[in-house]
Amino acid sequence: MSTGDRKQRILILGGGFAGVYTAMFLEKAMTPAEREQIEVTIVSNENYIVFQPLLPEVISGTIETLHCITPIRRLARRATLYTRQIEEINLLKKTVRLAPEYRPKPITLEFDHLVIGLGTRLNYDLVPGMREHAIPFKYLGDALRLRNEAVGALEEASVETDPAERRKLLTFVIGGGGFSGVECIAELNDFMRNAVKSYPNIDERDVRCVLLQSAERILPELGEDLAAYAHHILEDRGVEIRLNCRLKAVSADGAIVMDKDTKLDETIAARTIVTTVPSAPHPLVTSLPCELDRGRIKVTGNLDVADWPGVWSLGDCAAVPQKDGITSPPTAQHALRQAKTCAHNILATIRGQKLKPFAFTGLGKLASLGHRSAVAEVLGIKMKGIIAWLFWRTIYLSKFPGFDRQIRIGVDWLLDILLPRDITQVRIFQDDAVAQEHFHAGEFIFDQGDFGDKLYSIVRGSVEILKDGESVAVISEGEVFGEIALLEDSPRTAAIRAQTDVDLVSFSRPAFKQIVTHLPGVRPTIEGIMQKHGVDPSVLHSAE
Amino acid sequence: MSTGDRKQRILILGGGFAGVYTAMFLEKAMTPAEREQIEVTIVSNENYIVFQPLLPEVISGTIETLHCITPIRRLARRATLYTRQIEEINLLKKTVRLAPEYRPKPITLEFDHLVIGLGTRLNYDLVPGMREHAIPFKYLGDALRLRNEAVGALEEASVETDPAERRKLLTFVIGGGGFSGVECIAELNDFMRNAVKSYPNIDERDVRCVLLQSAERILPELGEDLAAYAHHILEDRGVEIRLNCRLKAVSADGAIVMDKDTKLDETIAARTIVTTVPSAPHPLVTSLPCELDRGRIKVTGNLDVADWPGVWSLGDCAAVPQKDGITSPPTAQHALRQAKTCAHNILATIRGQKLKPFAFTGLGKLASLGHRSAVAEVLGIKMKGIIAWLFWRTIYLSKFPGFDRQIRIGVDWLLDILLPRDITQVRIFQDDAVAQEHFHAGEFIFDQGDFGDKLYSIVRGSVEILKDGESVAVISEGEVFGEIALLEDSPRTAAIRAQTDVDLVSFSRPAFKQIVTHLPGVRPTIEGIMQKHGVDPSVLHSAE
Repeated sequence: MSTGDRKQRILILGGGFAGVYTAMFLEKAMTPAEREQIEVTIVSNENYIVFQPLLPEVISGTIETLHCITPIRRLARRATLYTRQIEEINLLKKTVRLAPEYRPKPITLEFDHLVIGLGTRLNYDLVPGMREHAIPFKYLGDALRLRNEAVGALEEASVETDPAERRKLLTFVIGGGGFSGVECIAELNDFMRNAVKSYPNIDERDVRCVLLQSAERILPELGEDLAAYAHHILEDRGVEIRLNCRLKAVSADGAIVMDKDTKLDETIAARTIVTTVPSAPHPLVTSLPCELDRGRIKVTGNLDVADWPGVWSLGDCAAVPQKDGITSPPTAQHALRQAKTCAHNILATIRGQKLKPFAFTGLGKLASLGHRSAVAEVLGIKMKGIIAWLFWRTIYLSKFPGFDRQIRIGVDWLLDILLPRDITQVRIFQDDAVAQEHFHAGEFIFDQGDFGDKLYSIVRGSVEILKDGESVAVISEGEVFGEIALLEDSPRTAAIRAQTDVDLVSFSRPAFKQIVTHLPGVRPTIEGIMQKHGVDPSVLHSAE
Repeated sequence: MSTGDRKQRILILGGGFAGVYTAMFLEKAMTPAEREQIEVTIVSNENYIVFQPLLPEVISGTIETLHCITPIRRLARRATLYTRQIEEINLLKKTVRLAPEYRPKPITLEFDHLVIGLGTRLNYDLVPGMREHAIPFKYLGDALRLRNEAVGALEEASVETDPAERRKLLTFVIGGGGFSGVECIAELNDFMRNAVKSYPNIDERDVRCVLLQSAERILPELGEDLAAYAHHILEDRGVEIRLNCRLKAVSADGAIVMDKDTKLDETIAARTIVTTVPSAPHPLVTSLPCELDRGRIKVTGNLDVADWPGVWSLGDCAAVPQKDGITSPPTAQHALRQAKTCAHNILATIRGQKLKPFAFTGLGKLASLGHRSAVAEVLGIKMKGIIAWLFWRTIYLSKFPGFDRQIRIGVDWLLDILLPRDITQVRIFQDDAVAQEHFHAGEFIFDQGDFGDKLYSIVRGSVEILKDGESVAVISEGEVFGEIALLEDSPRTAAIRAQTDVDLVSFSRPAFKQIVTHLPGVRPTIEGIMQKHGVDPSVLHSAE
């Protein structure tokens, strides 16, 4: 393990609890002499760590946006931080390649010890339309986006004259009845029912928050009685819980759900669909040459990877055996203890000391139900209601990384009791210039007379063209529609309905104008399509 | 003015101080009977009002993002709010058409009284490249973006190995030495010099904040001695002030400035260029049939528009004559008093009472210099330093719309003294899929060996293709380059340098892949270009 005069390089991949706490425990455990000899580097997509348990409170505005995150530099002060995407991990050459950022040059880092704490990704592939139309609930940006969607829906509903459209705008469907889904819908429901009071044109009864759970009860992580309590509390506050119900597809018009008992499909018309499940392995992890256990890196009880000396893994991306025989669950409390073990074992390896196995088996489980209520199971003791909620807040506040953030969150919680909640909608999310869309058979992509703002290309499936309610043609894969209304401020001349389930790529009006004007080859083709559709292609000039 | 049994409809355009305070004063002044008879509607792009004077503090994180805005619904509770873009104002038909939002249907509103308070827009047309590469400083989203740019620059600089690139990343150029520019650079400079302490790899001396002012001194709105004091304070804190210096062009590489004395051009290499000047009339205002005065709506002292009964205008978009003969300046304090007059006069018209002319001439002027210093001129009294700063905070806190926000800002200011400033970078701004770019003659668009992430189309001008430093070809308007590296993970095979000033449209890699795959006509054309450039077009298949 000698590196001669060169420093030992410990490279940590991932800016979650696993990675950042490994760096923190390393800094703490190193002697002053070792600090000169050992270099710690972290690579993270963001320059902050997200405290996931408080993410739902960002939706409701109970805590300020930036307060559920802490700058990594403030936690691991001696480590070098690269805020970059990782492109490749090469275990043989002991290098990691980072994607270019501002300058178009990739960076390659070398390591002696590699700590892989990359977590998981959301899996969009199991449910058609999910990638295109559902909002994931995993990162800070997701919570912000969901909050803005909620306020946007209120704004739109308050001036919407069609009652069906209004109800659709005010319907929120959340897939997944585990911790994340329950906490998310609790805060979202609280926020909506509170905010709606500022919208005199909206009837609160039009607000609908639906939780879909494919199992027979919510919160399978907890005992049956606590889950039943949580179920009751949520229903009491107006949440609609659908058990044995699976999200089958998501379209621009709503959620298609299947009742597992009746095997019948139902469409819940909704503008906002949120998904909290399921997770998929990180693609960088599955590309590794080492042994995996259901998509997770197989490690020993010492957190090292067999046959790959110097390679360590922990957190959600690793299959860590606990001393009780089960695999360590993907929670922050486990990641944090694994980080301590990992830091200890890396230093022990460098020092030539004995390694220590991971020995933590969990303290308990907590879920906030919002509105001063929670359920908890801690060291075998079950708690619920306001006691559990106070316990929940105390635990998380004390566990929050960074003293200044603890104060800020404490102040937020105090002000939340005293002041009204915020209903501003900060629309900083651009609409996608080029986007993928999914429609279920029978759904309308647009209606005759609509304002035309997109051009569509069919990737898979077919659509019907309807004029005055009559089907006049069917077009499919590889064909383009919607080009006419894009070029002038005129309404759509026909309606388009999905004949089968269809996947589309849409181009926004501004993007399409740039493409037609500046990419050679596009204009004559589009002119040809217009002639075929019986439109004078000279209108194309108005696109410039 | 009788409308029979129908309600009187007052329609207010614009959600700034002018529009929102008109609605507030109307609500306050109406009798309970009138509240049944008169309908007040506001149309605003956002559902909140921005308190501009505190916007610079969002950059530094002194106050939380959402605290410098207040929900319009909380201020004007009885008014109907449309959060929409306005497409057309028709004074003859007495209608206003709003753009579609979620549903693709426009909305048309009718009015009896129309209040136009649309403000101004930033004028990008005077400086080439400004639209493409400069960050405006006017809206809340701009302040957030600037803050993220500042943290992003620190992150990049901390791992950048080239000293010239590092200095460029850490250079910020702000155009405009008026109130807005001075307050912006004061907060940005404070933030950077404070935040840099968390980046041990960065030398503070590499941080450069440059203020460009085309006049002979900064803050022309204030007396000479206060401006000199502000100049001295800013320089003392490390701000570089360039007087008699005009922003001539902005490119992806920096700011091209012209010294008015020497008439010489100089390029300041900088990643971030901010513009606070100049403002242009709102396009909806210039399209109106009524009389304009240098792009502003000409109104009488009663704030009504001559020859157009029922049409009123105020705020920055109106030329309001003051009793002292000058035109009312574009400040919040003036807009607020105009709103009071406007609300009074609309009700007086409906009631058949006498109108009252606008009689306010201003209380004074304040500019914060950050870091517990300010300059002020109030009722003829001049103040500077910490006294002016405390006065500035007191005045703005008391003037802030909404009591809950006043408390939140007060708490923010208190915590800012006690706790470290935030350095998290919340990257929720997507890169543009299709963007316009500007390069100055001689600048490199990309270098040989760079990572290829964009395809470019030349809109105006010409570029040189360089292989190993030798110019091998010149291409111009209508031609495309950069298509090769897009299709595989290979570096750029040549460098591209602007031969003249060039305007380009760039397509990001993901957008281009969608376009090539799904827009008919593009693939054969690009294949043709590749063949001409000597590249095997079969690599195109890897794009799918």
